[in-house]
Amino acid sequence: MNNILTLHGPNLNWLGKREPEVYGSGTLEELDRLLEVTAGELGIEIKIFQSNHEGALIDRIYQEASWAEGILINPGAFTHYSYALRDALAGVGLPVVEVHLSNIHQREEFRHQSVIAPIAAGQIMGFGFESYLLGLRALKKLL
Amino acid sequence: MNNILTLHGPNLNWLGKREPEVYGSGTLEELDRLLEVTAGELGIEIKIFQSNHEGALIDRIYQEASWAEGILINPGAFTHYSYALRDALAGVGLPVVEVHLSNIHQREEFRHQSVIAPIAAGQIMGFGFESYLLGLRALKKLL
Amino acid sequence: MNNILTLHGPNLNWLGKREPEVYGSGTLEELDRLLEVTAGELGIEIKIFQSNHEGALIDRIYQEASWAEGILINPGAFTHYSYALRDALAGVGLPVVEVHLSNIHQREEFRHQSVIAPIAAGQIMGFGFESYLLGLRALKKLL
Amino acid sequence: MNNILTLHGPNLNWLGKREPEVYGSGTLEELDRLLEVTAGELGIEIKIFQSNHEGALIDRIYQEASWAEGILINPGAFTHYSYALRDALAGVGLPVVEVHLSNIHQREEFRHQSVIAPIAAGQIMGFGFESYLLGLRALKKLL
Amino acid sequence: MNNILTLHGPNLNWLGKREPEVYGSGTLEELDRLLEVTAGELGIEIKIFQSNHEGALIDRIYQEASWAEGILINPGAFTHYSYALRDALAGVGLPVVEVHLSNIHQREEFRHQSVIAPIAAGQIMGFGFESYLLGLRALKKLL
Amino acid sequence: MNNILTLHGPNLNWLGKREPEVYGSGTLEELDRLLEVTAGELGIEIKIFQSNHEGALIDRIYQEASWAEGILINPGAFTHYSYALRDALAGVGLPVVEVHLSNIHQREEFRHQSVIAPIAAGQIMGFGFESYLLGLRALKKLL
Amino acid sequence: MNNILTLHGPNLNWLGKREPEVYGSGTLEELDRLLEVTAGELGIEIKIFQSNHEGALIDRIYQEASWAEGILINPGAFTHYSYALRDALAGVGLPVVEVHLSNIHQREEFRHQSVIAPIAAGQIMGFGFESYLLGLRALKKLL
Amino acid sequence: MNNILTLHGPNLNWLGKREPEVYGSGTLEELDRLLEVTAGELGIEIKIFQSNHEGALIDRIYQEASWAEGILINPGAFTHYSYALRDALAGVGLPVVEVHLSNIHQREEFRHQSVIAPIAAGQIMGFGFESYLLGLRALKKLL
Amino acid sequence: MNNILTLHGPNLNWLGKREPEVYGSGTLEELDRLLEVTAGELGIEIKIFQSNHEGALIDRIYQEASWAEGILINPGAFTHYSYALRDALAGVGLPVVEVHLSNIHQREEFRHQSVIAPIAAGQIMGFGFESYLLGLRALKKLL
Amino acid sequence: MNNILTLHGPNLNWLGKREPEVYGSGTLEELDRLLEVTAGELGIEIKIFQSNHEGALIDRIYQEASWAEGILINPGAFTHYSYALRDALAGVGLPVVEVHLSNIHQREEFRHQSVIAPIAAGQIMGFGFESYLLGLRALKKLL
Amino acid sequence: MNNILTLHGPNLNWLGKREPEVYGSGTLEELDRLLEVTAGELGIEIKIFQSNHEGALIDRIYQEASWAEGILINPGAFTHYSYALRDALAGVGLPVVEVHLSNIHQREEFRHQSVIAPIAAGQIMGFGFESYLLGLRALKKLL
Amino acid sequence: MNNILTLHGPNLNWLGKREPEVYGSGTLEELDRLLEVTAGELGIEIKIFQSNHEGALIDRIYQEASWAEGILINPGAFTHYSYALRDALAGVGLPVVEVHLSNIHQREEFRHQSVIAPIAAGQIMGFGFESYLLGLRALKKLL
Repeated sequence: MNNILTLHGPNLNWLGKREPEVYGSGTLEELDRLLEVTAGELGIEIKIFQSNHEGALIDRIYQEASWAEGILINPGAFTHYSYALRDALAGVGLPVVEVHLSNIHQREEFRHQSVIAPIAAGQIMGFGFESYLLGLRALKKLL
Repeated sequence: MNNILTLHGPNLNWLGKREPEVYGSGTLEELDRLLEVTAGELGIEIKIFQSNHEGALIDRIYQEASWAEGILINPGAFTHYSYALRDALAGVGLPVVEVHLSNIHQREEFRHQSVIAPIAAGQIMGFGFESYLLGLRALKKLL
Repeated sequence: MNNILTLHGPNLNWLGKREPEVYGSGTLEELDRLLEVTAGELGIEIKIFQSNHEGALIDRIYQEASWAEGILINPGAFTHYSYALRDALAGVGLPVVEVHLSNIHQREEFRHQSVIAPIAAGQIMGFGFESYLLGLRALKKLL
Repeated sequence: MNNILTLHGPNLNWLGKREPEVYGSGTLEELDRLLEVTAGELGIEIKIFQSNHEGALIDRIYQEASWAEGILINPGAFTHYSYALRDALAGVGLPVVEVHLSNIHQREEFRHQSVIAPIAAGQIMGFGFESYLLGLRALKKLL
Repeated sequence: MNNILTLHGPNLNWLGKREPEVYGSGTLEELDRLLEVTAGELGIEIKIFQSNHEGALIDRIYQEASWAEGILINPGAFTHYSYALRDALAGVGLPVVEVHLSNIHQREEFRHQSVIAPIAAGQIMGFGFESYLLGLRALKKLL
Repeated sequence: MNNILTLHGPNLNWLGKREPEVYGSGTLEELDRLLEVTAGELGIEIKIFQSNHEGALIDRIYQEASWAEGILINPGAFTHYSYALRDALAGVGLPVVEVHLSNIHQREEFRHQSVIAPIAAGQIMGFGFESYLLGLRALKKLL
Repeated sequence: MNNILTLHGPNLNWLGKREPEVYGSGTLEELDRLLEVTAGELGIEIKIFQSNHEGALIDRIYQEASWAEGILINPGAFTHYSYALRDALAGVGLPVVEVHLSNIHQREEFRHQSVIAPIAAGQIMGFGFESYLLGLRALKKLL
Repeated sequence: MNNILTLHGPNLNWLGKREPEVYGSGTLEELDRLLEVTAGELGIEIKIFQSNHEGALIDRIYQEASWAEGILINPGAFTHYSYALRDALAGVGLPVVEVHLSNIHQREEFRHQSVIAPIAAGQIMGFGFESYLLGLRALKKLL
Repeated sequence: MNNILTLHGPNLNWLGKREPEVYGSGTLEELDRLLEVTAGELGIEIKIFQSNHEGALIDRIYQEASWAEGILINPGAFTHYSYALRDALAGVGLPVVEVHLSNIHQREEFRHQSVIAPIAAGQIMGFGFESYLLGLRALKKLL
Repeated sequence: MNNILTLHGPNLNWLGKREPEVYGSGTLEELDRLLEVTAGELGIEIKIFQSNHEGALIDRIYQEASWAEGILINPGAFTHYSYALRDALAGVGLPVVEVHLSNIHQREEFRHQSVIAPIAAGQIMGFGFESYLLGLRALKKLL
Repeated sequence: MNNILTLHGPNLNWLGKREPEVYGSGTLEELDRLLEVTAGELGIEIKIFQSNHEGALIDRIYQEASWAEGILINPGAFTHYSYALRDALAGVGLPVVEVHLSNIHQREEFRHQSVIAPIAAGQIMGFGFESYLLGLRALKKLL
Repeated sequence: MNNILTLHGPNLNWLGKREPEVYGSGTLEELDRLLEVTAGELGIEIKIFQSNHEGALIDRIYQEASWAEGILINPGAFTHYSYALRDALAGVGLPVVEVHLSNIHQREEFRHQSVIAPIAAGQIMGFGFESYLLGLRALKKLL
């Protein structure tokens, strides 16, 4: 049994309503249920947390630092500037898998690279909800 | 009657005290009263919210997403880096008018362009409190 | 009564015919009539001049330098490179309001910032003809 | 029979005298005669205009907007900065072929790309007077 | 049953011998066997091809263009400059998943982004051989 | 007696656990005790606040704006992007001393300069806990 | 009678199938037949070679170095990085005309300039198959 | 006796009124009289022309191309972008001396170098009207 | 007892006379006396050397390499380009503390970062003479 | 006896014919004979291979990976972009000496640095054929 | 009578021998004699100093700080990097005129702007020895 | 017999003590002896000079300008910024060979290219003392 903390960054609460042609029409609740089912199948205990507050995500990382064995995170827009989130992820010393629903290299507006990527074990993007499920699987392998 | 959400970004709570030669000596309370009066004249119902927390502004945008018909925002320093705030503004799909008290192109220190502007309907800057009032008027026209 | 010089930069003579999905289908004549009506309502005496010649716009600024109390300008493509126009605007020492029909931050092709903006009192963009009318109102307030 | 407007940008009046090792020793009059002959052969009615004034070129574009079916232009030095000329060319919605006597990629001093090219149908350079003749032929094909 | 073309770019023939602390000590033969086993489990028919020749990879893409339903590719060093490979991948119009054994954002020497990524459906990196297996799974889902 | 507000930015709650080879193994509690002792010796009254929330740090600055005579701050990762924090520090008009435990010029990953530095009175970095104590001493001198 | 070597770079084998809205639906075979016909009309003997291999194109240039009097080349994606191809073209000392089916300045993804252009006599782009035919004509004139 | 064409670029008609703390309070008429007197002393015949029109300056250069033996020019704001003016100056093949009233390296807003300088014989700046007089003297020496 | 070499870079001989509003009106002699007094209090033996010659500073570093246990340096303008000085400081393998009288991040003209900083143990700036005294104290702690 | 693999990159087959004023008039055959003679004198067994195909050079490196003790390479134009070649050279773990006939820093057109250099033991350039001979000697010393 | 310090930077001792096609064949001795004669005519007392040592030039500036009323300097190669020299020139608070024998904007290799220029009163370049003589005259005017 | 001036730049006096893992443990005296022995074998008369003073190296170049037939130089840190040294080397018109003990392309801190290289005949780096010996040999060949 492995403990995985799953973090959803800002605006993911609006999943299914925001640009559905990019992010799909599934809601965060549906994604979370899917994550729980897959976690169960893979023998993973999972905690899930969404916040639009950078500080709240960081606080949660530290609160779960001794429980969690790995972190699965979709940093949302924080991908592009939150050095604070990155330091927290690096600080707790757990393997991190960064996931994105869409392929961020296809979106011209986000021309800055991920500031999270250099401290992640790996990165998966472009497969919608499946990005998360593959991420769980990848984390499981790493543990 | 149109519903407009007005958002003040970080440090606007200090209006009147911070660099009055740039931002004027009027306080946020005075600005808010002015906004309410003008809204009344224009047949606009207005809600006003100030926060120094990026996450709190984002949360509020989602809370008012079904009530509001447009958003008037002075993003303050978030203008220059808050991709999360921008995603929220774009996410709810409402017309956004970005306002600034001063002309940000005259302040050398802020050399980065607005990250909010590309998703705004329009931008008004440089006229002190009047920037907000013109913004209300512009939003009214758009609706 | 305030005297305002309104300047239309290059290609605005083609308004209504050029990219109407961006600039609307109203013509320059219609815009000018609207400006005159609004000026009348605001107690403003207005002179309007359009030219595709950078030098003609500059010449006109100097000709009206003692008559005008403020300048309302849509510099068109000169926004991006005419340091000569900017020097003229700065040279006569009148308050300048820069307006644009569309939100120039949404047009990837014009990635250079406005060279006019740093010497303007303020900037209004994105509201079609309304940008000009709000600009008149803003200038009136400044005087 | 197709109507083509041919525009020569600044300094082309000096053709044959300016850097003949780069631009050849033929004069603008000789080039224009050649253009007229070739136009005749291709069944093209041609009007030719040279100016050192950006605004005069723009004015001419609008004057011929309903007569012309295509535009052949050597923008000269305006290639590198005249966004106003580019907007006029794009504004009238006619196919544009940009030509240059020399290969501008071999001249280190002009390191900025053409600002005209993105709105042109095509570009031909490096063949002296022949660049224009090939350009006429290309325009003919496009019509 | 789905047909997947798997491509290994340059230097992957040396897997297990080249920087094993980065890429692991497993050989390409071992990886290929693993791919075949996993493909079998997922109901995928797989063809595998490695080459140090950019042209050979491109040729193969066209040869399999009607057989394959998706492409799994580790472009190796071509990630950083092969616009020709990218055009071929885009040209055949099949879904592409780009995989990397290591997290390329942790290797300072490769500071150029992937030129393949913008035309890929998704990207998976950092999990060693597992990157390929997750990639197969992701492609299966896309089909 | 001088009143000094001491602010610890994000991730400093994890001091002693996060990269101890860079930041040392002392904890935030030990650092705070040291600060209080030194403050006592220097005749300084001190308040200390740590937060992972940018907004909470800003709020606190305004709450202590009339009590404090100077601010000692280690902005952590906010050093590199929090223009909002910088505006708050500048807004209250108190002398600010920026400190860092390590020499940030030795960490390649943080290649962006401090956005706080231009509004600080001075900067001290590289001496571990001693950076704070020297900072207190420097602030005392400034008052 | 003039001998012209015509080279098609990578992915041109897929002409007619790859992005037909950009490149047209004519195939390479059709283009080659057209080239042969036009060559015949112009009194040109022509050899045509396509390859996805940079090395094969270079080898061919040297093999035809004494037969050919000029080279007509569409370098495809090699336009943007093949310094080796450029050196070969420059090395044999023949006049080179670079052609492109589409106007590469309109495709944002290829923001790098042509590395071939500085050693070419001239460049023609944007006219589909006609680009090649005009290129043949231009080469004929140069010889 | 030497013939010198003296050109004043845009906004110099406003000399004495525009930023007198930078450019002095002398008018263009006074400067021109001074130039005529000094020319007389140096045995120079002088023609003087000011225009806010780039094209008019270029036209004048060609009109005087056979009379003039040298050109003294203050390009004003055209210094920073008028490649057309530069081509005209280079085109007539006369020695050019570029002068500026103020030291343009002290004005942060004009951070682009002079595009005229590379084709000038020499450059003199920073000495007010004296810059012109030294320029006349320098041209005299060159002839 | 600890031995500290204190180095003053170029132009510090002019202290008190050069821009006193930035650097204060105290002279180098006064600073040196202050350094000696403070060194005495801290149990430090100190040698002080000022030079406008890069080579002389480097020579002195090597001469004192076996006597000194640490180096306190204000590199003056060498901060921005003297890689030779940096190599000498790094070469002798002693802890280095870099100090500046003013906060160099507030001086727009020095936009290049310190080339000394990456090899220093720490950096202190902005406190006038106090920067040196804090530097002595910091070095003492490091030893 | 030491085994050295000597590789000539693209276009070196044309040596003596291509820009002889830069590369000399000696042919590749003459260079190879000279290499064999010098190798003999130095007690080196040498294999020599030239190709215009990046892939062929890479294949050959792997084929000789167990025979060779060192690699002498003139990467030609691959110097500037072939990360694949660089990975192969680094991959086999042999000492590499990079040579060039001319001084590439004198050729403005190649402004990109060598991508091979960072993985080479050393670099020799500017001495014509002698660059290779010195390279052999240097490799001999390293072994 | 005015006292002027004239400084020649590095390599000017070699005048007449170094690149005479750029700098002329006159020697430094001849230039100095010319300077003395012209100084005499203008009622200027002059001291002249040449050094290849940055520090020696700086030392001399301070030694003559109370004697001199202005400084005429050709900084030679120090133009491009000596912030120390610039600080010394600015430090003594005298008017500085920067001269160059050749037009440095025509020399592609020196693409960095002058670091001296922003603190100079004015700049004169391109007229050989005459640059110095005009500089003396300009300084005389300024005093 | 050929006369060669050998110059060691700053910090080479510390050879053997400074970063011996990069530069080896041999001292400058040992290197100089080796140079003298090799010079003797090659029939070269050699003079050797080391200095940490840029000006002293330049002075020496001019002093030996008529004796020397070639210059062998390791510019040390001056490689990266001493345009004055470069001008001196170019000024005397002798062939220059630039050598470095280590491969400077492997040291991330020195990201600026050599400013000496463009005026050198050739460059040799990465072979420790052997770089100098190969350099002597190369110079001998050039003479």
